Amino acid sequence: MNIKSPEDLKGLVRDVPDFPKKGIIFKDITPILKDPGALAFAVDELADFLAEVHPDPIVGIESRGFILSPILAYKLRAGFVPVRKKGKLPAETIRVSYDLEYGSNELEIHQDAIFKGMKVAVVDDLLATGGTAEAAIRLVEKLGGEVVAVAFLVELAFLKGREKLTDYNVFSLIRY
Amino acid sequence: MNIKSPEDLKGLVRDVPDFPKKGIIFKDITPILKDPGALAFAVDELADFLAEVHPDPIVGIESRGFILSPILAYKLRAGFVPVRKKGKLPAETIRVSYDLEYGSNELEIHQDAIFKGMKVAVVDDLLATGGTAEAAIRLVEKLGGEVVAVAFLVELAFLKGREKLTDYNVFSLIRY
Repeated sequence: MNIKSPEDLKGLVRDVPDFPKKGIIFKDITPILKDPGALAFAVDELADFLAEVHPDPIVGIESRGFILSPILAYKLRAGFVPVRKKGKLPAETIRVSYDLEYGSNELEIHQDAIFKGMKVAVVDDLLATGGTAEAAIRLVEKLGGEVVAVAFLVELAFLKGREKLTDYNVFSLIRY
Repeated sequence: MNIKSPEDLKGLVRDVPDFPKKGIIFKDITPILKDPGALAFAVDELADFLAEVHPDPIVGIESRGFILSPILAYKLRAGFVPVRKKGKLPAETIRVSYDLEYGSNELEIHQDAIFKGMKVAVVDDLLATGGTAEAAIRLVEKLGGEVVAVAFLVELAFLKGREKLTDYNVFSLIRY
């Protein structure tokens, strides 16, 4: 498909009703990922935003957040640092907890992944309530990194996740 | 770091003893990922191998397999298709089971992700016993795709995973 604008890209997002649970309409980005032109457009737009602040490394959040963030790291000649669920990273980590709608979740980063003063970008596929992105930012800042940008492919603006990220330089390509 | 050969790259892999359980020495590739030059070298070598067979799409396996495979899709101007654990993909899927050392695991792919006759590359970070790669290949073939290449960053050759993949065009960059 010939993708020339974020609106074209938005046209590829697939609504999946009742996933992961009844009443939720899931925004499925896999039709964008499998289309070479759409994938390239999405990456290039996000890269244009990030290039202005020269981040290194790019931090990506498990699992779907691993898809776009490493491409951006490669394209911007930056390193890639994974943030993962508890118990998944093999070496020494630091950890933060954050609240979900029901219960809580924990994320980790390798202790030696970020040094003081590094200019870091956090990238995820989706900005919903902002809890996950905020937790990843806290991990970077605990290690002394400076979060110079936060980028998402899709933003569910009606969930007001940006209100958790008012201190940061936030960008999203597709909004609902 | 100035990385000029697979041996240089291998020098960055970190041995983590007793992860994920006692007696296993885990090969941690995060030091490669966070080094821009090492990440670029690894991607470029894997891309050189894959470019010869013109794959589209590139299939990547959750979670660590999501890191390199999308970069290769972008670089080769191919699409990216995720293979995920049971229950994670939102739309209609097909599923395969495969045996692990203890118990079994299930992987899924979206039913509409691959069409008959597509030339597909399967990419993962690690070739160990080969069970995961073999399961991903079965998913692709069930949908009528032709697996034209299977590529890994690291191969644990002593686990003989290649013996499960003798019918395929297999490449790995770092071997133990």
